[in-house]
Amino acid sequence: MPKVAIVGATGAVGLEIIGLLEQRQFPVTELLLYASGRSAGDELPFEGRQIKIQNLASADFKGVDFAFFAAGSLISKEFAPKATEAGAVVIDKSSAFRMDPDVPLIVPEVNGDLLNDNHRLIASPNCSTIPLVMVLWPLHQAHKIKRVVVSTYQAVSGAGRAAGDELVSQVVAMLNHQPMEVRVFPHQMAFNVLPHVETFSPSGYSTEEEKIIEESRKVTGLADLRITATAVRVPVLNGHSESINIEFENAADPDQVREILKNAPGIQIMDDPVDAVYPMPLEASGRDEVLVGRIRKDLSVDFGINLWLSADNLRKGAGLNAIQIAEQILKIHHLD
Amino acid sequence: MPKVAIVGATGAVGLEIIGLLEQRQFPVTELLLYASGRSAGDELPFEGRQIKIQNLASADFKGVDFAFFAAGSLISKEFAPKATEAGAVVIDKSSAFRMDPDVPLIVPEVNGDLLNDNHRLIASPNCSTIPLVMVLWPLHQAHKIKRVVVSTYQAVSGAGRAAGDELVSQVVAMLNHQPMEVRVFPHQMAFNVLPHVETFSPSGYSTEEEKIIEESRKVTGLADLRITATAVRVPVLNGHSESINIEFENAADPDQVREILKNAPGIQIMDDPVDAVYPMPLEASGRDEVLVGRIRKDLSVDFGINLWLSADNLRKGAGLNAIQIAEQILKIHHLD
Repeated sequence: MPKVAIVGATGAVGLEIIGLLEQRQFPVTELLLYASGRSAGDELPFEGRQIKIQNLASADFKGVDFAFFAAGSLISKEFAPKATEAGAVVIDKSSAFRMDPDVPLIVPEVNGDLLNDNHRLIASPNCSTIPLVMVLWPLHQAHKIKRVVVSTYQAVSGAGRAAGDELVSQVVAMLNHQPMEVRVFPHQMAFNVLPHVETFSPSGYSTEEEKIIEESRKVTGLADLRITATAVRVPVLNGHSESINIEFENAADPDQVREILKNAPGIQIMDDPVDAVYPMPLEASGRDEVLVGRIRKDLSVDFGINLWLSADNLRKGAGLNAIQIAEQILKIHHLD
Repeated sequence: MPKVAIVGATGAVGLEIIGLLEQRQFPVTELLLYASGRSAGDELPFEGRQIKIQNLASADFKGVDFAFFAAGSLISKEFAPKATEAGAVVIDKSSAFRMDPDVPLIVPEVNGDLLNDNHRLIASPNCSTIPLVMVLWPLHQAHKIKRVVVSTYQAVSGAGRAAGDELVSQVVAMLNHQPMEVRVFPHQMAFNVLPHVETFSPSGYSTEEEKIIEESRKVTGLADLRITATAVRVPVLNGHSESINIEFENAADPDQVREILKNAPGIQIMDDPVDAVYPMPLEASGRDEVLVGRIRKDLSVDFGINLWLSADNLRKGAGLNAIQIAEQILKIHHLD
């Protein structure tokens, strides 16, 4: 029975991890919750008891088996090495180590077989990358992917807990014809769309777009995967969606794609548009599965498919994926 | 000085046309407003006076020079022939005649040169198609387009006046934890995204997506243009956006694309993402120009560009384009 620590316990992903540990009955002997000094001393409920939040600055990871890092990448860079040195297996949600060649970047359904007993630090990909590779990977096995063009429709929860509050308060202000506060996002998010997720590189790409491209390549092991991305924030509280165009090397018709994805782990097909059945963020929010639909032929290339997905960016896009990594490691230990 | 009629005067596009006729000082001797019997007798303001709305069922188009049709395609099919027979030039915003080979489908900046004195019926494209072809056309002149992949982020105003009211009332209901009415759209639109615009064909495409594909080909005259589209409704009141991926036959770098579009009519470049300058629906709403930004290289093909646009779907996407068509016809008359 492992001792578990959560770093960034009060954030959107941290809270999701606490809830998921409970829901999935992850075997926990002891749960340590770490956050900034601001939250230290507060309590959060877990399995019927209240757990005191401790100041990360004075964290002691001795005896911790799994440390879930769900704070920013600066926090991970500073504290993850301390946790691994103390003997913990760190599962890091931040971008700090994702592209480090020595760190496995894992989506269990795609490349979980890379995990082994010796890994002390495992990275979990970006919230847009995870559902994307879960769709691309099984399709690539069957039809070999030539090129991918993806445009995202990302919820504000991906920007942290304050972002949802800001969206709601902006909506309230607007409906009451009052001035609104614009703080988390660079522009009004209420009733607006921003082609801006995270920060921009000189290349003109946002870091979110670069992550989608680079992390997809690393997770699938397709180092030369031809993929481009446009990341967009929409006024949705939770649940990311993606419009995905895939060009294949080999013939792939919508029925084949539907069949492959129906049998792929972690994916649920919702594809009956005539009856208004398709993935939506509102539908995906709170669910484990990546919802996939709108599967149809793209006639602009020889072997093309358009499809659409929605997934809970805090769950499969973050907390759930991290816990599934830990579950897989537990399984390896049990097999040993 | 022409006599002008507006069919569908009380709709979202009809009201926009009335406002634009005023703002652009379109020369109007007399303005006739037609709507359904429900609105007949009501009045709408135009140039300081009140104009009575008349019942379309008993419309008489005799003496009308321009008839703007801004109702549904069934209305256009029934009444546009009556208007042309009476001698009016009909400019039709509906989809009724757009793909009719005898009817020119016009975006003045792209194919306005097709217009001549003999045209009695001219179609204006779909609100997503218009800004798209305004971007594609000048780029094609310079670099020859090979393929286009577009994903839209469409405002609810494109679904008519009731749609905005529904979005707002759903938001209010949700914030007050009250049950909400879902009537205009098949699902809750508040804080949600629907990959569903208009209705679906057996092919799996929505009619909106088919229009984007087919109308873009007709307006540009590129009958074989390789283009695919995913049309998505977002919880935005007004202003459509599009994520556009373009593969060119010839080398095209972002600076060239920016320069070409800067000089293209009706387009305004907003492209300084590091300073959070990019098109947004909130920025585009109420403006004539198609806003273009996020112009960057797509490295997944030899000559690829990603870009992003926002445009006012009721203005350039509908009412403004129709009026610009009429303005061009007036010019032709004056030249004669």
